[in-house]
Amino acid sequence: MKNNKSKYMKRLIIINGPNLNLLGKREPTIYGSLSFTDYLENLRKTFSDIQIDYFQSNIEGELIDKLHEVGFSYDGVILNAAAYTHTSVGLGDAVKAIETKVVEVHISNTFGREAFRHQSYISPNASGVILGFGMQSYELAIQSFL
Amino acid sequence: MKNNKSKYMKRLIIINGPNLNLLGKREPTIYGSLSFTDYLENLRKTFSDIQIDYFQSNIEGELIDKLHEVGFSYDGVILNAAAYTHTSVGLGDAVKAIETKVVEVHISNTFGREAFRHQSYISPNASGVILGFGMQSYELAIQSFL
Amino acid sequence: MKNNKSKYMKRLIIINGPNLNLLGKREPTIYGSLSFTDYLENLRKTFSDIQIDYFQSNIEGELIDKLHEVGFSYDGVILNAAAYTHTSVGLGDAVKAIETKVVEVHISNTFGREAFRHQSYISPNASGVILGFGMQSYELAIQSFL
Amino acid sequence: MKNNKSKYMKRLIIINGPNLNLLGKREPTIYGSLSFTDYLENLRKTFSDIQIDYFQSNIEGELIDKLHEVGFSYDGVILNAAAYTHTSVGLGDAVKAIETKVVEVHISNTFGREAFRHQSYISPNASGVILGFGMQSYELAIQSFL
Amino acid sequence: MKNNKSKYMKRLIIINGPNLNLLGKREPTIYGSLSFTDYLENLRKTFSDIQIDYFQSNIEGELIDKLHEVGFSYDGVILNAAAYTHTSVGLGDAVKAIETKVVEVHISNTFGREAFRHQSYISPNASGVILGFGMQSYELAIQSFL
Amino acid sequence: MKNNKSKYMKRLIIINGPNLNLLGKREPTIYGSLSFTDYLENLRKTFSDIQIDYFQSNIEGELIDKLHEVGFSYDGVILNAAAYTHTSVGLGDAVKAIETKVVEVHISNTFGREAFRHQSYISPNASGVILGFGMQSYELAIQSFL
Amino acid sequence: MKNNKSKYMKRLIIINGPNLNLLGKREPTIYGSLSFTDYLENLRKTFSDIQIDYFQSNIEGELIDKLHEVGFSYDGVILNAAAYTHTSVGLGDAVKAIETKVVEVHISNTFGREAFRHQSYISPNASGVILGFGMQSYELAIQSFL
Amino acid sequence: MKNNKSKYMKRLIIINGPNLNLLGKREPTIYGSLSFTDYLENLRKTFSDIQIDYFQSNIEGELIDKLHEVGFSYDGVILNAAAYTHTSVGLGDAVKAIETKVVEVHISNTFGREAFRHQSYISPNASGVILGFGMQSYELAIQSFL
Amino acid sequence: MKNNKSKYMKRLIIINGPNLNLLGKREPTIYGSLSFTDYLENLRKTFSDIQIDYFQSNIEGELIDKLHEVGFSYDGVILNAAAYTHTSVGLGDAVKAIETKVVEVHISNTFGREAFRHQSYISPNASGVILGFGMQSYELAIQSFL
Amino acid sequence: MKNNKSKYMKRLIIINGPNLNLLGKREPTIYGSLSFTDYLENLRKTFSDIQIDYFQSNIEGELIDKLHEVGFSYDGVILNAAAYTHTSVGLGDAVKAIETKVVEVHISNTFGREAFRHQSYISPNASGVILGFGMQSYELAIQSFL
Amino acid sequence: MKNNKSKYMKRLIIINGPNLNLLGKREPTIYGSLSFTDYLENLRKTFSDIQIDYFQSNIEGELIDKLHEVGFSYDGVILNAAAYTHTSVGLGDAVKAIETKVVEVHISNTFGREAFRHQSYISPNASGVILGFGMQSYELAIQSFL
Amino acid sequence: MKNNKSKYMKRLIIINGPNLNLLGKREPTIYGSLSFTDYLENLRKTFSDIQIDYFQSNIEGELIDKLHEVGFSYDGVILNAAAYTHTSVGLGDAVKAIETKVVEVHISNTFGREAFRHQSYISPNASGVILGFGMQSYELAIQSFL
Repeated sequence: MKNNKSKYMKRLIIINGPNLNLLGKREPTIYGSLSFTDYLENLRKTFSDIQIDYFQSNIEGELIDKLHEVGFSYDGVILNAAAYTHTSVGLGDAVKAIETKVVEVHISNTFGREAFRHQSYISPNASGVILGFGMQSYELAIQSFL
Repeated sequence: MKNNKSKYMKRLIIINGPNLNLLGKREPTIYGSLSFTDYLENLRKTFSDIQIDYFQSNIEGELIDKLHEVGFSYDGVILNAAAYTHTSVGLGDAVKAIETKVVEVHISNTFGREAFRHQSYISPNASGVILGFGMQSYELAIQSFL
Repeated sequence: MKNNKSKYMKRLIIINGPNLNLLGKREPTIYGSLSFTDYLENLRKTFSDIQIDYFQSNIEGELIDKLHEVGFSYDGVILNAAAYTHTSVGLGDAVKAIETKVVEVHISNTFGREAFRHQSYISPNASGVILGFGMQSYELAIQSFL
Repeated sequence: MKNNKSKYMKRLIIINGPNLNLLGKREPTIYGSLSFTDYLENLRKTFSDIQIDYFQSNIEGELIDKLHEVGFSYDGVILNAAAYTHTSVGLGDAVKAIETKVVEVHISNTFGREAFRHQSYISPNASGVILGFGMQSYELAIQSFL
Repeated sequence: MKNNKSKYMKRLIIINGPNLNLLGKREPTIYGSLSFTDYLENLRKTFSDIQIDYFQSNIEGELIDKLHEVGFSYDGVILNAAAYTHTSVGLGDAVKAIETKVVEVHISNTFGREAFRHQSYISPNASGVILGFGMQSYELAIQSFL
Repeated sequence: MKNNKSKYMKRLIIINGPNLNLLGKREPTIYGSLSFTDYLENLRKTFSDIQIDYFQSNIEGELIDKLHEVGFSYDGVILNAAAYTHTSVGLGDAVKAIETKVVEVHISNTFGREAFRHQSYISPNASGVILGFGMQSYELAIQSFL
Repeated sequence: MKNNKSKYMKRLIIINGPNLNLLGKREPTIYGSLSFTDYLENLRKTFSDIQIDYFQSNIEGELIDKLHEVGFSYDGVILNAAAYTHTSVGLGDAVKAIETKVVEVHISNTFGREAFRHQSYISPNASGVILGFGMQSYELAIQSFL
Repeated sequence: MKNNKSKYMKRLIIINGPNLNLLGKREPTIYGSLSFTDYLENLRKTFSDIQIDYFQSNIEGELIDKLHEVGFSYDGVILNAAAYTHTSVGLGDAVKAIETKVVEVHISNTFGREAFRHQSYISPNASGVILGFGMQSYELAIQSFL
Repeated sequence: MKNNKSKYMKRLIIINGPNLNLLGKREPTIYGSLSFTDYLENLRKTFSDIQIDYFQSNIEGELIDKLHEVGFSYDGVILNAAAYTHTSVGLGDAVKAIETKVVEVHISNTFGREAFRHQSYISPNASGVILGFGMQSYELAIQSFL
Repeated sequence: MKNNKSKYMKRLIIINGPNLNLLGKREPTIYGSLSFTDYLENLRKTFSDIQIDYFQSNIEGELIDKLHEVGFSYDGVILNAAAYTHTSVGLGDAVKAIETKVVEVHISNTFGREAFRHQSYISPNASGVILGFGMQSYELAIQSFL
Repeated sequence: MKNNKSKYMKRLIIINGPNLNLLGKREPTIYGSLSFTDYLENLRKTFSDIQIDYFQSNIEGELIDKLHEVGFSYDGVILNAAAYTHTSVGLGDAVKAIETKVVEVHISNTFGREAFRHQSYISPNASGVILGFGMQSYELAIQSFL
Repeated sequence: MKNNKSKYMKRLIIINGPNLNLLGKREPTIYGSLSFTDYLENLRKTFSDIQIDYFQSNIEGELIDKLHEVGFSYDGVILNAAAYTHTSVGLGDAVKAIETKVVEVHISNTFGREAFRHQSYISPNASGVILGFGMQSYELAIQSFL
């Protein structure tokens, strides 16, 4: 949107799904005790030459809206759809419908958890999937766009 | 029901679900390149003696809200729940809960696509289902109310 | 067959599958009490400028034969395969093999009935599907060809 | 048909499905070595005060036709649909559509054979089921109508 | 087997499973309003030249015990295992283990009810199955032994 | 129903299924260390104006017998069928066959345990279900009858 | 929020999911004809010494938001997630993520309805489940917190 | 079997099932553009010392009739049951019931197509199966009888 | 555990489930022709320095009762639950609830028989499983306790 | 492909999977008593103008290695992957990855045996499948390359 | 091999599958901390009058090779196929193909672990199965051959 | 773990499974046209300060052997088990048994391919999973260890 600097700066966005606003607070043995805002600050320092936007919502449709909004102009989307990963045909369709590449990430190893977390409606449409590296998953996803 | 005014104009509403706001932009080989707003204009010309309202949302709950709002006074609902068709028990319940008849439509032939698109929580509660005729599906649905 | 009039008249055919010869007699609460012949007469009056042929058989193979016969010259087929919808790979293959477009119709809402009626071997190969509108399903199917 | 004697004689019909014309010839260890015609003769002697008609066809649709023909005037149908038992939604619909009661019979114990023979589209619509008694199954079915 | 006495009277036993002691009291629209004891009296009158014993228990193991007790000397067992039909591998094993032939009966048409009633552990081991004829099912089963 | 005596005292019965006689002894981390007899004493004190009978058996058929015995005169049954919940069609049939309302209770949260404990043959026939509150489940069940 | 009275008053909240705003209007034979607001008034009178807040939304994510908001300070949540019960991994995760105990309630007996209503993503994470008692389900849930 | 005459000419028959009459016309990219009659002529030239009969029908029961007719005198049957392969228990039973050996053939590689084409009711009863060689499948089948 | 008497004799019990009272009589080709009592006598001779008790019942609940009775004092249980192995959650729970170790045995190789015999509710709670060695299975189980 | 030498001799290879080295020794009623080496000698005599190589291994990866080795130069592969047919995604991938056509053969009729032998990871990638002809299966496969 | 002593000494072989070479090193809480070589030494001392050979491989086909090598001369095979138990049709076939009896053993109770470990391709062909006794499983297996 | 030498160079190994030796040759539209050796050279240049070993085998057991060999001393394993991912319980066990962390990688997006490629026996035991980035998947995996 406000990206018209002379020297082009890559624009990525991290989109986090339901309950990820509780990071640092919720089940810290699984998800760690760092809040995502703190983590994001570090991430922006590490990758200081790119723009990293952030969006979180617990509402499936708002995540779809955001994908539509960025999906024809950004250079990459890093999507952790959390619980919606396993139930949302709509998010999967949105990922497929937009032009920007989407990398799917998960903090935990979803394959080591309940069976219903083994299915993903995002994966078949994502350009890549990274999972199980804790917060590092986001970092690797960013590196995949560089 | 209580609609016997002298110059009564039938009131229908088309309710479109997630990602359908991208019509004309998203996968044009499947969904065509006409935006829904353009299509709607034509539709209103063709059926000039009835009122055709329109609502689109990517948020499941807003679709339910809208069904509640119109579902006890309108003469008909044409519902393309898109991805939510296959996952939303809540939309199916809403269709069952209201009094206005609901016709389910789909632009593409959902049975010729992925297996998870073959199931519909809307169909058992719809008064009729029309699918696979492209944009004409909406037109046929309107005709079913005349 | 006898379609060589100067001004071309569209030729459609309605093909009805097993037990539909009992319409008006069988389970009238589901299928209505009008015989199909009576209904057909009305239909031909409504659409007087097109030729509407009719064929019914309880024999799967005769339905296939008829599809072959009309499937390279007619303008459209309206197929209610009834029970064979759910079991006949052969009919599905025939629909796919011919050139004429086939619209699948059902009188009742098959999705509100037994689970084995939710599957259709016709749908993936049909150009459109209309179901649950009672006898009006046929009328909408005809309109889809106009 | 020719049933207008002064003292009413009950009219039953035995309808046999595919491959049962080979009885006495096919897998005699399972089905016995008596042909059905010979067996029928004995049956008619045993039940000399009722009319027992017989029909056999390997064509699913002809079995449906016959059910339609007798299903509004006969006193009972004894149906051994053989292989079609397990695959024919159409026969099941026909049994449901007619008025005459239908008793489903099988010569062998279908539950002691392949899994696909454990399902029956006839049973839910039959007024009773008798199976596994060899040829005696037919006799018990007739007795059920007396 | 070793039953060639001069004035031998055939010995059959009807074994009824769980909840059948409530017959006449429980869900009379499905099972009728006649108690089994009354029905049995009639049955014994009809078949006055054979001995018809009776046993009912709600305890799976007592039904097995009874099968063992009669299963090497009686001429026939008529078994309505009711609910245990669908869950008891043990009863199925008992039927297979004994020498006397067992005919499985059901009052209602189990195939027209819940899916879990479509499976029977008795059927594969029974010499015949009769179901759906109401109380007449027992009568037909007795006739099968004559 | 017909219980309008002047000083009528409500009669309820708690029926406990297999292994519940070991309460206080078996897996105390899941089921607590209080024996059911001790708990019952407290319960009767709390609800001193109603009669609370108690029955426990490890034998499926005896549980059915007891349901029959109380099921046409008591004001309520509180049934914890334990393991039989998941396997006993017979108990489910008994609950359906009697007139007294039955409330199903479980001490533990069965949905948080093995998959085979997620199915209940009792639930569809129970007038209500309460589970996961530890011993308090029984108390809430009693309150539901007041 | 405004809970700093001298004598501590317990704070509970009832959270209702999709279509429950239609209570009293929708399918009254299943859900009764009392609106939830009227019912709530009675409930607050009955339990006058505790604070009972109320929230309803048709939007899955707003229900998650509300759980987050109250889930670290309230004394209890009574959650009727309605249709989302059966499809929302996200709500289940939210229930698990918060500290306040959540009791799951349903008005109807979900096990006596369609198969897809037998599964709950809430139950494994709820501290207790109460279902099938009509509006009384809420009352029992409140009692479970006292 | 009893075919050791001096100048005996072997008798084989090719039986083709539904839609194979369209060969050369239907989906030529899968089935080739040669009509079966043309192909048959070549085949007869190649194998000039044996008699090769031919039968095609779209009617399942006529295919069964033909198997019965030739199945006790011919030296071999080459059966391409096409769509009926996957749905016809009756054809499978017929293959098993007759004495002549039956080789099952398919033009296309059915295992590379839809899942419902992976099942065959013919295969378990066939003496051999040949598939995926295009028209050459028939030739190899004939060679298997030499 | 508390078994450190000077001349302590180990106490084991063999518990046999349904139909095993017929051993030597039932299907001798599978189970052998030796009665269990005769076998037991030999076993006691072989292991003369330990006490080997024996219990058999066809009643599931009596097997549970016996497990409770011995399960807190005996040194070992050898359990052949026969048919109940595959259906009894209650027996599995009992094995888990008691303190004495339970070794599961089967005479035949249950994995070489019907599919429903491949599942065991006992195995996950047993301390070991021995099957398929005929009567020797019991002997090996005893040795496992020495 | 590039094989147009003047006196070119076609090069085929037969690759046999696990346990086929026991042919003639293992279950002769199913596989015959001829060793494969003897059979091969005959085969080479019959087809004296082509080169027929042979490879057998019980190691899945060695079969893959061999396919890679011959798969870009030979004129055809005849692959009997035996048990690996039903479990080896890797062999299926190898067949797909190489350029030489692969014909899948089986000696026995795999569809007449256990259910797990009905699935093949080879078939979807093979250019043809021949099964059930005993050793003749190999011969027919060779003929398919001529 | 070197088994030609005057007094015949029984020859058994223990064959261990994948990852069992890590015993004592891998997950000691499940498998114990004793290496198999140490255990084997003890075993040979205990059973000093028989020859106990040993073979371990992580390669499926080498296990098959070894079974072929010993399977026509040894007195018994003790096979712990570990992970291949659950996936190797080839090993199951080898066990069936050889003449020597094979006893299947597992150290852990496979039925108390992941669902995919509940299936065994070895069991149906083994002469007996012993599992869950830790290292003692091997000892019991040896005793079964004495 | 014990790697705190002064000039320590990290040691990683890339282990590639079946058919990956064909990279650059096999299905280049899916896997690219670069051979893995060439790619490896680039990779080593990019990460010049760490040691990157390489191993490829088509033999499942050799992959297990290699994991054992490096799994107690290396700093990281990057495992692309290719086809064995979906079928090898043994590889999954090996990953779990060793101490070195294993990152699972795939070149293609396995979730966009056949259903049997959606399951992984490696994932639940891997410390992270990266898939769908083409050859870049390996690079990201290496970065995850830095």
